[in-house]
Amino acid sequence: MSAVKLEECRQHIRAQLDSVVDFWLKYSHDTVHGGFFTCIGKDGNIYDELKYVWLQGRQVWMYCRLYRTVDRFRKPEILKAAKAGGAFLRKFARVSSSSGQWKCAFCLTRDGKAVKVQRSIFSECFYVMAMDELSRVTEDQDMQRDGAAILENVSADGSELPGCLGRLQNPGHALEAGWFLLQYAAERGDEQIQTTAIQKFVELPYESGWDKAHGGLFYFLDVDGHCPTQLEWSMKLWWPHSEALIALLMAYSQSRKAELLQSFFQVYEYTFSHFPDPAGGEWFGYLTQEGKVALDFKGGPFKGFFHVPRCLYMCERILDDLLASKE
Amino acid sequence: MSAVKLEECRQHIRAQLDSVVDFWLKYSHDTVHGGFFTCIGKDGNIYDELKYVWLQGRQVWMYCRLYRTVDRFRKPEILKAAKAGGAFLRKFARVSSSSGQWKCAFCLTRDGKAVKVQRSIFSECFYVMAMDELSRVTEDQDMQRDGAAILENVSADGSELPGCLGRLQNPGHALEAGWFLLQYAAERGDEQIQTTAIQKFVELPYESGWDKAHGGLFYFLDVDGHCPTQLEWSMKLWWPHSEALIALLMAYSQSRKAELLQSFFQVYEYTFSHFPDPAGGEWFGYLTQEGKVALDFKGGPFKGFFHVPRCLYMCERILDDLLASKE
Repeated sequence: MSAVKLEECRQHIRAQLDSVVDFWLKYSHDTVHGGFFTCIGKDGNIYDELKYVWLQGRQVWMYCRLYRTVDRFRKPEILKAAKAGGAFLRKFARVSSSSGQWKCAFCLTRDGKAVKVQRSIFSECFYVMAMDELSRVTEDQDMQRDGAAILENVSADGSELPGCLGRLQNPGHALEAGWFLLQYAAERGDEQIQTTAIQKFVELPYESGWDKAHGGLFYFLDVDGHCPTQLEWSMKLWWPHSEALIALLMAYSQSRKAELLQSFFQVYEYTFSHFPDPAGGEWFGYLTQEGKVALDFKGGPFKGFFHVPRCLYMCERILDDLLASKE
Repeated sequence: MSAVKLEECRQHIRAQLDSVVDFWLKYSHDTVHGGFFTCIGKDGNIYDELKYVWLQGRQVWMYCRLYRTVDRFRKPEILKAAKAGGAFLRKFARVSSSSGQWKCAFCLTRDGKAVKVQRSIFSECFYVMAMDELSRVTEDQDMQRDGAAILENVSADGSELPGCLGRLQNPGHALEAGWFLLQYAAERGDEQIQTTAIQKFVELPYESGWDKAHGGLFYFLDVDGHCPTQLEWSMKLWWPHSEALIALLMAYSQSRKAELLQSFFQVYEYTFSHFPDPAGGEWFGYLTQEGKVALDFKGGPFKGFFHVPRCLYMCERILDDLLASKE
């Protein structure tokens, strides 16, 4: 029974991944100036031509990963698109700064002129990721409150920050860190890290982050139960659900705890009944607490060809392994 | 009839202003370290002790203005609170920067240690405002699209920025700029500025910003009708409604156009039936598009003793003048 359901999941996820890859291959390539459009409306229209560097880097990374590891994506057009994206980044993303060190712009005009440079280093991270491999981000987060909660922001020495900033929780980030840790634990055969990852970074944020009234994962929470000060705290975003699917399925695959599979099915049900747009392709990214589409575009300054295909790709791989081991 | 309704409005606004001032006098003063708490929950509880410098400066400004210009607020406790807030700011808000110029912190610990310094200059603005007078912010915004729309962000030379950033509209900011311009026009007797302010900065953003389906003013819009990329775009915030009340009443008072008074009554109806909390005092600040309370605190990192009392104070003054002229 469970194998039948898992097989159904795999077929569905495989079809979703094919459809999402098709969407971005069809709409996002700028054949004139290179690089990718990422601000893509409901029906594939480009509503902003700026090139957001995070998403340029992520799309190159995602294409490379698919090309390298999934047979059906080992296609010349994907390799060509990844190379073209990398060339665009190398040519335009790096800007010189007053300190003499190089920086990456946050966004560029369609033809590659820097529009905005941010002080943070995320653009540089995704640039490096695109050129190389997924960075070791797994150890950035720290356990606080004696392991009773994962906090979004801590001080450099790991202690809790004052005020609501310090109390902020982001269930999606905790779950994402959870599967980073699970991969790390599996590579090193470290059962202690595996147990911590499952209990503290998967089960805990899933339980506290799930909206019992309307379903779905909250975007932000306050660890002491105050109302978060982020206006969008109660919204349901696509990417925490993508991360939850990976984290829960990977945690089940490593531990075979039945509860984790049940949780996976719960997130699966919510995710696929709310986010995908069967009419226009791809997923909507931003829902109200009640699950209504609040922003109707498919790609934007922070939503590109990354979380959805990474989730579908990884879930498909894990399901392949699970079903192979059951056969 | 209209005078009767205006008199009702005045009584109601006066009572609201008294109640809001009481709320902040009662809950926000830090008698141990000085300065003001601004993160205040539904029932007056302090849920974050950090001192946000914008709101420290704004509260000092608001207390001074009330003390100086409204007889019933000329009370020693208000003067004392304003002075104490000013002393706290002078002692702790200014920090030295690497460039040698002084900066203001964005927020401080309860006892005045800088927690966060931002690159933007808003903290400095509100610091200066608190120490001196309301700055001349009226001419910051520019008319774009041949006067058919007010844009939130433009380049230094006034031209339109590329992408969705350049197309962003914030009806509340446009309306706020509108009444700044109306004041400026009245001081100088400049009818051309008055006409522009009413047509372009009051009527236009009110008409395009009003949610015909659920009532209330949208937080953000895209001038070309695309979905804004701000997650909170469709939420109803308290302050755009505060600014709309001032702008519409001032525009009516200067022009006596009946449509402006009707619009004022429409915003009045929505505002007072949605934002004030008769049970716990003060106003809720953040509603969903449908008008449900989405964040239930009374004060937060960006909501303090400023927009609500400034709106009530100014509306009361304008109604005094209007009613006096009718008598």
